[in-house]
This record gives sequence, C-alpha cells and structure tokens, in this order.
Amino acid sequence: MTQIRHILSASQFDRPFLDRIYHLTNKIRQFDKSKEGLMYLQSLLPHQRAMLYFTQPSTRTFLSFQSACHILGIKNSEIRDTSTSSEMKGESIEDSLRTFSSYVDLIIMRSPVRGLCDRIANLLDQSERPVPIINAGSGPDEHPTQALLDIYTLQRSFKDFGGLEGKTICMVGDLKRGRTIRSLARLLTLFPGTRIIFASPEAFRIENDLRSFLQTSKFEFLETDQFSDAIYQSDAIYMTRIQDEYDTTVGESSKVDSSKFFLNASHLKHLKSTAVIMHPLPRRNELDPVIDKDPRAKYWRQERNGMWTRVALMTTLLGVDQKILLPEL
Amino acid sequence: MTQIRHILSASQFDRPFLDRIYHLTNKIRQFDKSKEGLMYLQSLLPHQRAMLYFTQPSTRTFLSFQSACHILGIKNSEIRDTSTSSEMKGESIEDSLRTFSSYVDLIIMRSPVRGLCDRIANLLDQSERPVPIINAGSGPDEHPTQALLDIYTLQRSFKDFGGLEGKTICMVGDLKRGRTIRSLARLLTLFPGTRIIFASPEAFRIENDLRSFLQTSKFEFLETDQFSDAIYQSDAIYMTRIQDEYDTTVGESSKVDSSKFFLNASHLKHLKSTAVIMHPLPRRNELDPVIDKDPRAKYWRQERNGMWTRVALMTTLLGVDQKILLPEL
Amino acid sequence: MTQIRHILSASQFDRPFLDRIYHLTNKIRQFDKSKEGLMYLQSLLPHQRAMLYFTQPSTRTFLSFQSACHILGIKNSEIRDTSTSSEMKGESIEDSLRTFSSYVDLIIMRSPVRGLCDRIANLLDQSERPVPIINAGSGPDEHPTQALLDIYTLQRSFKDFGGLEGKTICMVGDLKRGRTIRSLARLLTLFPGTRIIFASPEAFRIENDLRSFLQTSKFEFLETDQFSDAIYQSDAIYMTRIQDEYDTTVGESSKVDSSKFFLNASHLKHLKSTAVIMHPLPRRNELDPVIDKDPRAKYWRQERNGMWTRVALMTTLLGVDQKILLPEL
Repeated sequence: MTQIRHILSASQFDRPFLDRIYHLTNKIRQFDKSKEGLMYLQSLLPHQRAMLYFTQPSTRTFLSFQSACHILGIKNSEIRDTSTSSEMKGESIEDSLRTFSSYVDLIIMRSPVRGLCDRIANLLDQSERPVPIINAGSGPDEHPTQALLDIYTLQRSFKDFGGLEGKTICMVGDLKRGRTIRSLARLLTLFPGTRIIFASPEAFRIENDLRSFLQTSKFEFLETDQFSDAIYQSDAIYMTRIQDEYDTTVGESSKVDSSKFFLNASHLKHLKSTAVIMHPLPRRNELDPVIDKDPRAKYWRQERNGMWTRVALMTTLLGVDQKILLPEL
Repeated sequence: MTQIRHILSASQFDRPFLDRIYHLTNKIRQFDKSKEGLMYLQSLLPHQRAMLYFTQPSTRTFLSFQSACHILGIKNSEIRDTSTSSEMKGESIEDSLRTFSSYVDLIIMRSPVRGLCDRIANLLDQSERPVPIINAGSGPDEHPTQALLDIYTLQRSFKDFGGLEGKTICMVGDLKRGRTIRSLARLLTLFPGTRIIFASPEAFRIENDLRSFLQTSKFEFLETDQFSDAIYQSDAIYMTRIQDEYDTTVGESSKVDSSKFFLNASHLKHLKSTAVIMHPLPRRNELDPVIDKDPRAKYWRQERNGMWTRVALMTTLLGVDQKILLPEL
Repeated sequence: MTQIRHILSASQFDRPFLDRIYHLTNKIRQFDKSKEGLMYLQSLLPHQRAMLYFTQPSTRTFLSFQSACHILGIKNSEIRDTSTSSEMKGESIEDSLRTFSSYVDLIIMRSPVRGLCDRIANLLDQSERPVPIINAGSGPDEHPTQALLDIYTLQRSFKDFGGLEGKTICMVGDLKRGRTIRSLARLLTLFPGTRIIFASPEAFRIENDLRSFLQTSKFEFLETDQFSDAIYQSDAIYMTRIQDEYDTTVGESSKVDSSKFFLNASHLKHLKSTAVIMHPLPRRNELDPVIDKDPRAKYWRQERNGMWTRVALMTTLLGVDQKILLPEL
C-alpha cells in the first residue's frame, strides 16, 4: 500500500488503499454503535486541530468533514469565504495557507482554483510545518474523497453478493462535466471484471481522455443513449445531475433533452432486486423523491458513508488507523 | 407526563412537563457551581452532534442553544444563511434537512417558514434516521423554548413567595404580534389562580383566538390601556417591544403612540418590592437601561435561564435527564 | 506583578508580567511536544466558554485566539459580522455584549470602535457577570496581544545571545500609523540598554507622542530614512507594511516612495548572523518571500508564538497559570 502524506487526487488510490479504507470504515461503524465506541474514536485525535478552508461553497462536503472531525475529537476552525476577510486582501494565497499551517495540524481544502492543493502541499512540505492537506474538491478536476465514499458504498452494497468485482455499474446523466464520474470510473478499473454502462444524452457523453484511459486499461464499457435498456442489466445505477454551472453559454444545458435520463418510479420494476441506486447529491429532478422509500435507494446511506470514509481517511493520514484496526470490540 | 420526541410547539407542554423542566434546570444550575459539576454535565452527551439550522437570523437564541450544547459536550455544526450555499441552491429543503440528519443526532431549527419544523419532523420520522427536532422559533407562530424559559423564570422568581400560582402577570406592549405573549399566556393557564393583565395600545391588543382560548379556559384576565394603573397590582411586569418587522404598511407601528407603555425609573416606586421585571430581549426604548440596576430587574437572569432550560430540554429529549436528577451533589 | 482582570492595553504590562508570560509560554510549548502534554493543557479550562466578538475583520488574529481556546479546551462561540444579525439591529452594543456575558466566561473582542473594550469592561464589572475582556485589537489605538507576542519572540530569539537587553531593534516602514509599532516601542523601554532605529520615509515617521514618551523615558532611539545603513547595526529587523487603510485622501500612501524600505535578498549579506527578521503579517511587497528560507526569518514562528502567548495570557486571566508552572514534565 502506498504511504500517503496528502490526499490530492483519486489517482493516488491503489487497490490495497481502497481495501484498507473499506475495512477501516467498517470497523469505525462498529464503534458508532455505542457511546463507549464513539468515545474511543474521540480519544484518538483530541489534541489535533484542523482547518476547513472552503472557498468554494459546499455545505454537504463541509458538514461531512466537520462531523468526521467531531467524531475523532479534532478541533476545527473554518474559512468559508475569503471575501469577508479584509486582512487577507492583498495577501498571497500561499501566505494565507502558511498562516493556517501555523495554527493547525491538518488542512482540508476546497477551492475553485485548479491545482491549488498540490501547490500548497508542495509549499508546506518545504516549510517547518509540513501539515497534511486533504483535497475536498478542486474546481472541475478532482474530488478524491467523493470517489472514496462511492467505492466504499459499492463494496458495502455487494458484500453479501460476491463483492464489487464483476458487477455492472450504470452511470447516468451529465457524464461530460461531472468530476465524480471521472474519478469513480478510473477507480472501478481496479476491480477486475467490473463493467460500466455510460447512459447519457449525446451532448453529455464522457470525455475523450477518460474513454482512452478505459480502452488502454482494457476495461469493459459501453456508451448508450438508451437508459431504459440499461436499467435491467445494471447492478448499480449511479445517477448524476446536469452540471449547468459549467455551461459556457447561457442556457446551454437546457437545450439538451435530458428527461430520458431521469429515474422515476416506473423504472423500479425493471431493476434487479439486489441492485442499488446511488447519487452524489444534491439532486434535482433526475431522481424522483418517491424512490427514497425503495429499499434499493442507497443515496442517503451513501452520504452518511461519506462521513465515515472521511473519518477512516483522517485516521490513516494522521497515523492512528492502527488504533482502529487493533482493538477488539 | 407526555413522552416527547420533538419540541415543535409550546402546546406540547403540560404541567408535569413544565414542573420537570423546572426541577431539572435547578439541578443543572447546581452543577454549574463547580468545575466538577460542569465536567459531569459535559460527560452526558459528548458523543452526540447537533445541527443549528438558523435560516432566520437570531444571535441571541443561537448563542443560547450553542452554549447549551457546549455545556452538555454536544458538538455542533451550523447553517446560518442558506443564501451563501450554492450547493443547496436548487435542492429541496427536505433534501437539505435529510442531509443534516445523516450527519447529526439532533436538529435545532429556526426558520421563517411556518410549519416547517412539523413537516421535517414528520419526514424524518419516516426515514432511517429519525433525529429529534427542536423548534427554535418559526416565523410569527411558535417559539416554544422562549415560553419555557419565561415560565421557569417566573417559577424561580416566586419560589420563596408561594410559587407562581395566584400571581398577577402584567404583559405590556405589542400583544398582537408577539409570539412570546401568545405562548406564555397559554402556558399560564396551567397555573391555577394566576391572572394576566394585558396592557397595550388599542392597536396592539391580543388577537381574538387568544382571547377566546383564555375565556374558554375560564382564566382570569383583563385588558387595559392604563399601564400605570396596572403596575402596582402586578407581581411580574413582562415588557415587550413593538414588533414593527411585521408591519404590513410602512411606518404602521410608528403611527401608534406606545410611549405610555414604556417602563422607566419613575414607575419603580409603584412596583411591589417582591415583583419582578422581565423582557424577552432585545429591548428598544420601552425599558429604560437605568432599571438594570434595580434588584427586581430579572431580564438578564431570564436570558441566562434560557440557556439552562435549553440544557434541561436537551437532556430530556436525548434521554439523559435521569442522569441529572439522580446523582447527589 | 500587577493583578490583571482584563487585557485592554499594552500599557498594562509591566516587566514582571512580560517575564511571567515568557516563562509560561516556554512551559506551554513544552506541553505541545506530546499528546499527553496537550491533553493536560486541554484539561485546564474545558468547563469554560469564550465569545470571539470580532466585528473588525481579522482572520489571522481570530484563528490565533480560536486555536488558543482549542488548546485549553475552552468552547467558543463567535460573532464575526453584526450586519448579518437582524436581532441585534436596534439593540445597543452594551446590551449585546451583556447578552454574551450571560452565556460565556470570557469575551475576546476586536472592534473598530476606539475605547469600546474599556467601556464594556467597566459595564460588566458593575453587573452580576463581570467576565474578563481581552482586547484583540481596537481600531487604530491598541492591540496588546500583538505587542505581547512580539516581545516574546524577541526574548526567545535572543535567549542564547544574552537576552533582549542591549539589543538594537530596527523598525521599518509605516511607523506613523502602525499600532504595533507604538505598543512594541513602549514595551521595549522596559528592557534596559535596548535601542530602536526607526527607518521610514519622511511621511511615515513616528508620531510626536511616541517620540516624547521615548525621550522622557531616556530611551535611546534614532530616526533615519537610510534603511540600508541601519541593517548591519541591527539585531532585529521588524518590518511593517504601509497601512493605507488609514489614508485620509485616496492614493495618499502611493504618493510616497516606500521602496527603499523593502527588505530583499540583497540585504541578507549585510545582516548579522545572529539577527532576526520579524513581521506582524500580512505582508505585501515590503518583505520578499525568497527570504522565508533564510534561517533568520522568524515571522512564521512569530505568528505561531502569537497562539502560544495567547494561551499563556488566557491561563493567567482565568487563574490556571499556576497549573502550567508547577507540574514537572
């Protein structure tokens, strides 16, 4: 398993790392079952402080990380909006981040600036306080912890059905602009025999670089605009919303008819009884809320899994993962 | 005593519940007297996480609840302004709240949307994570924890003077639009022999539904526009500010002469020596700051009582109230 | 040593107080070396709550104090921007602060209002809850904890070189409008034999009142516009940025050529090997980032020292400083 100092990209994760996070997360969820277990988790890192530096707004990911800190006893500070901080005006972003590193032991950052995490990790590694960085989403390119929780949810969902290997994952919606899709597809190549069906409107098909990567990896995949036909073959339906915030012209997305790629109650009868429905959330109209009550709907658990996998990741990064794996419950 | 899963409305509180909160709060204040006592309180719920979802701004109530969480060791997350969260744009409020329920064990919410708390409590009760909801103020209709702290303060103030039963409470100011007045008046009917004098300008008299309720309950009350005459008869003066944020036309409130319903130093000599002066705060000019030094002024203690009654409420809701009542100090 | 109830001004600090903070801070930094030590610090004040009332934006100072709270186990609440709090509109600032005092045990406040801290400290001292106040910066006049960390950093830097006494401190840049300069210069008069060189453009020379104070104190100082000549004589270079936020006419500062008062790599060869370079941060172009790698650059440590000296200050104010000084490590 790769020794990891920062979490910058999903491309850092190899199969042993994913499997270890899977086991750690399962163990951590056992601790969640009692006050004693939860207090044990809180005893692991109460002497540590984390900065949640979220200059790209994200309530969901922010709360997930903050709760993960709470679970481990980590104290946290936050920057949510640099525009409110006059003191930081005129200061370089490098100086600001170096300031945070003076006060805390871990920096979790989400920024619209591509490559910023790598640059800061590199800067701090050369300083007297080389604190670890976790990329909590950087512009359109990387969101490694989302990929991690998706893989965990898939592994967990299929643990009694032969595991994730060999399963068919159907990814649906805006496959062109969703960073989630890119990271998850790449990580699925680490699970032999797994197959992806990409179901999207012509305008939102996957990008060439991902297609090339999958072809080079000799990974089996299919692209289709017939979502209905894909449903009955799938073990997991991974829904995504149209990422219209990346439209380059006004109304670009609304010109595309995406309605054939919405999942609604009428599809449920075609879906395998052991299949799972996932969504990175937030959803719009591509996933009908009436589906929430179907036992195959796993997106709320997937969201909560995000919190637990982030706990697992932080214990790994801060060197207390052995303290999770070792004790008998 | 009613078993309570959520705190949605002051109408949920019956007399045994109020008496129990009174005893709990008194006990909790004993714990506040030493570091050991405070650490015992913090040991009750340190494994729990609460969301403070305050989309209607309220610094005072927010800080009171947050401090109550701190006292019990509860970790907290907050949403103060949904407009800053782009991720939540386009997401239904039900999905947002369900997301919070994925991460926390308790949701404390204040919202301008009438009935939202009930709707969310109902939604979560049908989900896999039925976390309790506390209504920390919902638009113009309900603010149950304010009513709770008011009752506590009255009970506490009169504990050496025969209790709240039989006392005369004079409510003053904008009685038409203050939700505090409505809830408090209803709860006072649970204390036999208590009497209310409503002193207000004609334009700000209590609403018909409250008047009918009190009549049906055979509760003794009086409406007057002669505040000065009411003072000497009263055991408690409950001041309120003009709620001009609910004006339906610009300057509506300022057309009413409310100055006869202001309390100032000249009134103090007419007030019983055992009487108390209360105010839900914030105040404007209806309550002269020179009164702060009068020993009968209880509004700052009333504010602090708010924190302690909220601690008591949370221990009840989260099932650790027995751990407050049992130990000998 | 003066017994101190509030920290309002650097003029409160006498030499015994500074020496005590120096020793306390050194001891606290020893505790930082292990989880056990840090947990001991967190055991000192976990039953206390602090309000960080920062209505003048300041990310750096805010985070420094918040981290100091975390280190001592103090729970914290915050007000960052009163404009977002509708509840506080129309409420006097005295009432708002008195409200905070109802909920917490310590108020740390930064405000643009000159003299506000003194006024509030005085108000609370006459109330039932006389909680201590720390001035974390008040408009252009006082920033006592910055002065404290600067003195600590100087003392620490020269501990193996005969101490701060007798050293030459060169203060550079906008000496007219920097409150840091004023406080630090005054405190340096407590260290016999110390000497200051003030290097600034003519337009940014120190104010008359500081000059008079130093003359009356018979403290040795020199004013110059030849920064280059001062460098080789100095034991510490204290850089400051141009405080153009205090310009009274638009572009006032930019009309002054300050470039001769910038420190860059070419100066390093003229600087004593034992000298130190300091800066209160944030910096602009007066301090070249290439200098960061020079071992004499102490500004990042100075920033971290700010956190530790604030821990020391809070233990003093809240009466647990003996618990730092006594235990053997």
